[in-house]
Amino acid sequence: MRGDVEKAARPYRIVEMETRDIRFPTSRELDGSDAMNPDPDYSAAYVVLRTDDGFSGHGFAFTIGRGNDVQTSAIAALRPYVIGRDAEDLGALYKELVNDSQLRWLGPEKGVMHMAISAVVNALWDLRARRAGKPLWLLLSEMTPEEIVDLVDFRYLSDALTPEQALEILRQAEDGKAGRIETLRREGFPAYTTSPGWLGYDDDKLRRLCKEALDQGFPQIKLKVGADLADDVRRFRVAREVCGPDYPIAIDANQRWDVDSAVAWVRALGEFNPHWVEEPTSPDDVLGHAAIAEGVRPIAVATGEHVQNRIVFKQLLQAGALSYLQIDAARVGGVNENIAILLLAARFGVPVCPHAGGVGLCELVQHLSMFDYVAISGSMENRVIEYVDHLHEHFTDPVVIDDGRYRAPSAPGFSAEMRPESIAAYTFPDGEVWKDA
Amino acid sequence: MRGDVEKAARPYRIVEMETRDIRFPTSRELDGSDAMNPDPDYSAAYVVLRTDDGFSGHGFAFTIGRGNDVQTSAIAALRPYVIGRDAEDLGALYKELVNDSQLRWLGPEKGVMHMAISAVVNALWDLRARRAGKPLWLLLSEMTPEEIVDLVDFRYLSDALTPEQALEILRQAEDGKAGRIETLRREGFPAYTTSPGWLGYDDDKLRRLCKEALDQGFPQIKLKVGADLADDVRRFRVAREVCGPDYPIAIDANQRWDVDSAVAWVRALGEFNPHWVEEPTSPDDVLGHAAIAEGVRPIAVATGEHVQNRIVFKQLLQAGALSYLQIDAARVGGVNENIAILLLAARFGVPVCPHAGGVGLCELVQHLSMFDYVAISGSMENRVIEYVDHLHEHFTDPVVIDDGRYRAPSAPGFSAEMRPESIAAYTFPDGEVWKDA
Repeated sequence: MRGDVEKAARPYRIVEMETRDIRFPTSRELDGSDAMNPDPDYSAAYVVLRTDDGFSGHGFAFTIGRGNDVQTSAIAALRPYVIGRDAEDLGALYKELVNDSQLRWLGPEKGVMHMAISAVVNALWDLRARRAGKPLWLLLSEMTPEEIVDLVDFRYLSDALTPEQALEILRQAEDGKAGRIETLRREGFPAYTTSPGWLGYDDDKLRRLCKEALDQGFPQIKLKVGADLADDVRRFRVAREVCGPDYPIAIDANQRWDVDSAVAWVRALGEFNPHWVEEPTSPDDVLGHAAIAEGVRPIAVATGEHVQNRIVFKQLLQAGALSYLQIDAARVGGVNENIAILLLAARFGVPVCPHAGGVGLCELVQHLSMFDYVAISGSMENRVIEYVDHLHEHFTDPVVIDDGRYRAPSAPGFSAEMRPESIAAYTFPDGEVWKDA
Repeated sequence: MRGDVEKAARPYRIVEMETRDIRFPTSRELDGSDAMNPDPDYSAAYVVLRTDDGFSGHGFAFTIGRGNDVQTSAIAALRPYVIGRDAEDLGALYKELVNDSQLRWLGPEKGVMHMAISAVVNALWDLRARRAGKPLWLLLSEMTPEEIVDLVDFRYLSDALTPEQALEILRQAEDGKAGRIETLRREGFPAYTTSPGWLGYDDDKLRRLCKEALDQGFPQIKLKVGADLADDVRRFRVAREVCGPDYPIAIDANQRWDVDSAVAWVRALGEFNPHWVEEPTSPDDVLGHAAIAEGVRPIAVATGEHVQNRIVFKQLLQAGALSYLQIDAARVGGVNENIAILLLAARFGVPVCPHAGGVGLCELVQHLSMFDYVAISGSMENRVIEYVDHLHEHFTDPVVIDDGRYRAPSAPGFSAEMRPESIAAYTFPDGEVWKDA
């Protein structure tokens, strides 16, 4: 260990980048089924960076099946940007990737190319945290306000957040950092579970899983809605019977509605007291979200897992469209852009409740919420991280949930590494799981 | 010809799909240089569909160099959706592509995957127009309002445009269609030219090209701005000296500014009376565009070439952020989504002035403006199509500009086909142009 830390201080270079198209046949069990995604095969476009002194960094984009090959090839296209580099100045390298004048045309800052940048940036952070011998949340939490501000691209943000305002937020949070780090290590961070609520499950399974969620100590659950109103009423009633009238139950429409139908549908479920309504319409529709928020008040609106970048989050906050902001660890431009989004949320006083699930999204995003708690918002109030209980067994440092809370990771890195035997078995289309399909 | 028309009426299937990564080394001459794109290599991720009875359809996504391989592989991933199909119900096939539950995760409806869908959808329209023996603008113009409405995906639009409202717009334009078709064939459609205004050109070249634009009868030109204010003032002064005080000169910042700097910079150029300011900030920033429009009034704001889909255009219109709407033929989901955008613009009474240039974008978008004139807006007033005078020689049916106007295409199809010898020479990295680079 001492030898490793010494090794990590010497100059080094990234000399290898491997990519893999990894897919899990989740559609066979209807895990992950919702109103827009009836049959996902949860997938990872996976990347490993290796240095000339024996360290590695792991990252991935999450997709739900078809197109994961395209996502993987987009990551591979970034090879020239990282080979020969180190992971020391991740502000500069991130901005170089995002602002490359030719690649930018493919977005800008959205879709496949932006998710590819996310995977590589996150792998660079995994590498850096491993070299530092710290879990990412702690590495970030121990950086100075100035170092953190240097990581952020403020372009297009200055009408809502300037570097000076960001510094002020971060400096305010300096007070009490050490205590919050101890609190996290002792108590972890609250989770909520979506496992009971997939649309493909029958009422008995829903009832059983609600009961299990309560028994496991989760402070909140979430139900998928939006395919059929009568079904939603029946399922929400079942969940309320098990959970009682005051337990927080959020609902998630996965972008199923137009503005007017969102307002009508959510109002029709109002008697069941939804904690929030998530993704009521297109993630691109800032004004639509604002109109829905107005139309369903006092029910809260949440969104973010498909929001493409900090610029759309900025507007959702400016428009007062959100009561909860849901970052995703692998859709926007990685750790750096998520720091910008956490700072925007703090500036507008909106709590961040991350999206997770999929493949490895819980593993990644826990680090960002914990960093938010220690160094930005300073609060766990009204904050929960989504939890879904599948596919964790494929990771070398899987999340640990204890009494409805994420335990703070202690292993060095970003918890992003998949087990070699899982990579081999689920590689598409030649791994053993797919070969016979 | 008669035999071909008979052949086109028989059942047929698409049996082949070829893709090509084609790049032009335009960065060697600084053609296309602007404040955000200093060294573009104009490129096409090109697709050809072939039927079992000998027809073909051509389409492409436009990029500016690096990443064109990723864009090409995204198009190739759509092969299973078109092989074995025909191009008869392009409403259904378009919606199937855009709403595929797994591919959708890669956007939704934005970036590389959406541009891939655009290329394939446009190739299907090229195929269909060739089979019909008509240029696309005429094929579309002769469809009934009901047929046109069936092509549109109204999801997420209903708070601004319903199918009934679209029908009403189209029915109103039925009156006088035949006369407008004749007008187009006789007089063409007004163009403006960006050729004088690239940032990389010196003042003498700017002066000479302004003079040429006037001599060639263009009713408007455009200057790139945003890299250096003193340079912009000097260049705008040169252009005004050549063109006179009242000639329309638009300026284009290619997303260079934040909100406050956009307002300040445009006001500083106000003495030169810009006809519009284009892309003042991020294409994702609806509220930012609205604030800029407010801040620079009475100078008009234009945007659209990087707007990802109809949902963002809807909001730009709802927010009163645009005085001119600039569709791009190959970024949103092809002809179908552009019809939705043309209808939205008509509903809000905003004139459409397409983005063009690049590779083949003039060839494509002329059809959409002409269709807009004949069947939707019914007007050429305040409407001009961008024109840039390079790379047309690589197309089999290149645009024809006559006295500053696009002549109406008469050959069957969407004018999308590149010459085989150009495809061979510019294929990256093995074509002869790149082999020695």
